[in-house]
Amino acid sequence: MVATQSGLAKRCWIGPNVGSGNSAKSSYLAPNMGEKAQNQQNQGKNTKSAISPTREENFPEWYQQVIKAADLAENSEVRGCMVIKPWGYGIWENIQRQLDQMFKETGHKNAYFPLLIPLSYLEKEAEHAEGFATECAVVTHHRLRAEKDETGKTRLIPEGKLSEPFVIRPTSETIIGATFARWVQSYRDLPLLINQWANVMRWEMRPRLFLRTAEFLWQEGHTAHETREEAITEMELILGVYEKFARDHLAIPVVTGAKSENERFPGADETLCIEAMVQDRKAIQAGTSHFLGQNFSKASGINFIGRDGKSEHAWTTSWGVSTRLIGTLIMAHGDDDGIIVPPRIAPSQIVILPITPKEDSKDSVLDASQALAKMLRQQEFHGESIRVEVDTRDLNGGVKNWEWIKKGVPLRIEIGPRDIESRKVAVTRRDRGPKDKEFIPKEDFIRSVSERLQDVQDNLLERARAFRDANIVRIDTREAFDAFFTPRNPNQPEIHGGFALCHWAGSNEDEEQIQKDLKVTIRCIPFGDEFAEEGTCFYTGKPSNRRVFFAKSY
Amino acid sequence: MVATQSGLAKRCWIGPNVGSGNSAKSSYLAPNMGEKAQNQQNQGKNTKSAISPTREENFPEWYQQVIKAADLAENSEVRGCMVIKPWGYGIWENIQRQLDQMFKETGHKNAYFPLLIPLSYLEKEAEHAEGFATECAVVTHHRLRAEKDETGKTRLIPEGKLSEPFVIRPTSETIIGATFARWVQSYRDLPLLINQWANVMRWEMRPRLFLRTAEFLWQEGHTAHETREEAITEMELILGVYEKFARDHLAIPVVTGAKSENERFPGADETLCIEAMVQDRKAIQAGTSHFLGQNFSKASGINFIGRDGKSEHAWTTSWGVSTRLIGTLIMAHGDDDGIIVPPRIAPSQIVILPITPKEDSKDSVLDASQALAKMLRQQEFHGESIRVEVDTRDLNGGVKNWEWIKKGVPLRIEIGPRDIESRKVAVTRRDRGPKDKEFIPKEDFIRSVSERLQDVQDNLLERARAFRDANIVRIDTREAFDAFFTPRNPNQPEIHGGFALCHWAGSNEDEEQIQKDLKVTIRCIPFGDEFAEEGTCFYTGKPSNRRVFFAKSY
Repeated sequence: MVATQSGLAKRCWIGPNVGSGNSAKSSYLAPNMGEKAQNQQNQGKNTKSAISPTREENFPEWYQQVIKAADLAENSEVRGCMVIKPWGYGIWENIQRQLDQMFKETGHKNAYFPLLIPLSYLEKEAEHAEGFATECAVVTHHRLRAEKDETGKTRLIPEGKLSEPFVIRPTSETIIGATFARWVQSYRDLPLLINQWANVMRWEMRPRLFLRTAEFLWQEGHTAHETREEAITEMELILGVYEKFARDHLAIPVVTGAKSENERFPGADETLCIEAMVQDRKAIQAGTSHFLGQNFSKASGINFIGRDGKSEHAWTTSWGVSTRLIGTLIMAHGDDDGIIVPPRIAPSQIVILPITPKEDSKDSVLDASQALAKMLRQQEFHGESIRVEVDTRDLNGGVKNWEWIKKGVPLRIEIGPRDIESRKVAVTRRDRGPKDKEFIPKEDFIRSVSERLQDVQDNLLERARAFRDANIVRIDTREAFDAFFTPRNPNQPEIHGGFALCHWAGSNEDEEQIQKDLKVTIRCIPFGDEFAEEGTCFYTGKPSNRRVFFAKSY
Repeated sequence: MVATQSGLAKRCWIGPNVGSGNSAKSSYLAPNMGEKAQNQQNQGKNTKSAISPTREENFPEWYQQVIKAADLAENSEVRGCMVIKPWGYGIWENIQRQLDQMFKETGHKNAYFPLLIPLSYLEKEAEHAEGFATECAVVTHHRLRAEKDETGKTRLIPEGKLSEPFVIRPTSETIIGATFARWVQSYRDLPLLINQWANVMRWEMRPRLFLRTAEFLWQEGHTAHETREEAITEMELILGVYEKFARDHLAIPVVTGAKSENERFPGADETLCIEAMVQDRKAIQAGTSHFLGQNFSKASGINFIGRDGKSEHAWTTSWGVSTRLIGTLIMAHGDDDGIIVPPRIAPSQIVILPITPKEDSKDSVLDASQALAKMLRQQEFHGESIRVEVDTRDLNGGVKNWEWIKKGVPLRIEIGPRDIESRKVAVTRRDRGPKDKEFIPKEDFIRSVSERLQDVQDNLLERARAFRDANIVRIDTREAFDAFFTPRNPNQPEIHGGFALCHWAGSNEDEEQIQKDLKVTIRCIPFGDEFAEEGTCFYTGKPSNRRVFFAKSY
């Protein structure tokens, strides 16, 4: 996974505006703009991309524009709260269904807990309370008085002040802990393996669609165990589920490991995470799994009579992924024409675009399109019926085609009068350029559709993996570290080297200082043997026996 | 559907404590305590039921006890908010998945809208604002200050007062209306057919698990149309979906119709509903579908350029069902041994209970149980894999069996060493008595399992339909009406006649008076021809051309 420093040193120092324009561009846009695709795109569209600005021109603004162009979500007038539109919500539904199946296969059951948390619950675990205090929406009243004002308009005034305010859950350890305390009496009641799909609220000062919103959707797993070892095993099991899901379903090859103490979940003894590298080479924390020790069981009173007849505190974990995954996949796979949705989680995996140039062949083209859709839906991809949409809207074909490119549907199929005669379909893959069209005998296509979707899925993963691996660099000196994370161009303040793999033996304060100086943090302390080696901390010069990942992050 | 008055008059006047004890009991408990089942149960359990009190002794308390015994949900320490436990949530997941499929098949897509609604949005539609004002949770602050008190304990104090408070959505017409206003520009953007699965909050003074909770889970459909007719058709389409879902999935035969003006949704021009009759003969409003006219489109500005180039207001609808459906099905199908879950929505449709009397045959019994489960899971019921659980817990077999009876799993299978030899399985249906066990060759059972589940499903519907029809009575005089709804026995204040089908030509005030006097309301004005006939209003003596349903309700 990790490129050697010598092999990569050259490439990684080529910032987007260093060296020739071409190599800079292709290095920056590596995951989905290989030379071939780029050429094709240029031919097809005369170098104009559907999204403006491009990733290269302004990555953060490109992100906003992709979300708009792909019709995924939008800001609401409630500050920081988004509206998730059908195409974006469709992705979430697939994420939800497929992850849910993985949770169930590993023995978890879903339940549902209250949205509101009494302040006194939150106060029980001090570190947790302090960690979330500054971002809690507070409910103080339970009714409104309706009055007519002088103009006759209805005004609503808060009434019915609550004796104890509630917060809208920012996470549910405390309320679920109070519930588990009721459910657990004996070691026979353990383990308790529960998951909740829910909305949570963390008041964000600088919201960004999907990545950081005041309200977001997520799943939060909460488990209680008899022993410390079992709880740690659970935390690790879930990390594995998240890593596998990111890789096989989202086509995102994450790095995994433990958080440093500074970056742990408030109240956790250990936090594991999956970290994705996106196309501006920053990290996105895409999922976390926490070992909570006995902190919450002591605070909430989750006690049980053990095998020896004595009362003990349970060992708990919690873990979650959220709609942030959608932001991650946009940034990981999108190109200058829009989002590219990995087939496994695409709301529609195939769109059929009937081409109806003449009125007299229109019906037969529409019939053939619907018939093809029906046959494709009878095929399966990873145990699910293939999801096919026929776009029969009365719109210009080119307009429709570009809408679907921007939405990132994996395969587009055109059927016109001539295709019916030749019994062929014109197939375009979203992960290739818009003009890379194949004409395939219809029966062959139906027979091979699942393999073709898998090929798109694999290609996205391969590209993302190559990009990630090319942008992980072993760095051993403070100068090289500073240079790696220093933007080269004032117009592109975000663009820098990627993930630095460094020996580290610094203190929490050292880590904070690096964050202040460079906005760089330890993303994770990876587990694998390939990271274990004797060396010297680049920052303190102290001995170290493992490299850790440093990166800028969302 | 409707029993004639003459045929039923005798039966319906037999209250539970009038006439012989036996006939009273069987009339009250009709849907799931026919004589046969009752005898079997008595034999098996020496007349003691698993739930105390029984339905007959105290129906409201029986309901609470069933929920507890079946492990469906419990009250949290957040007043009015419930914790939905895995078995209860599993029922909700099935309701959700199956209804969702019906919505999608009728062209609807899911999306997600903010939890919080600015007060100014709610104020826009006066009737709506006034309808929900008294039950809104109000968010007034967006952060907390963490302080240590004199004892060193963390205290949290609300800070960051919001310039405009928010309410937690009691329903989303206003926030979705504001969004639709952005989405709709032209008639080409219509119809907009959106559904949301979400939590909502209505501060309840007298909460009751599932039926009336401060927070509940639901789906809310919101659609916008070009014409009045299209919106009305949509409202009716959804009523049909709800009726079919209640009948075919929940085994609940509802009555349907329009609400009277008094009972309409605040801000609607028309409300249609499905109303279930449960075993104390009260009605539960189990789903509603509203035609909102142009009220919300005017308030929110959902305007579009029509085919004639002029700006018009859209016509909107909204519709919903909630976790209340679970309360309805408990009250519709439960018996004195617990809940009975209709197979289509049971989290587990079959439980396999390995009987392991001897250590040396234990492994082979467990293996045979798992092998059977695997084969059953390969069978389908209504297009879904059959859901089978093997209960391998190290508990007394009788204890386990009763747990599953209380939880209402449709089929229980016992496998012991002798069954392996004889290649048979011992099958017990939850809708029959606990001792009504059949020994069936294993292969036959596997082959017929889907039909057997359907037979349970059909039987539950049939029983509920017979009970409903037996307790709908045409009533034509005020005296008969009063008597029908007057409890006969002070110990059972809830028990009364059922649904009264009456001619009605009274005013809104007359309706309110009846509600005050008898706690009886018009549940719906049914559409069918069988309700249309000339007659005289029982209350006012005025002419009427249609009968309406009156009932007590939850």
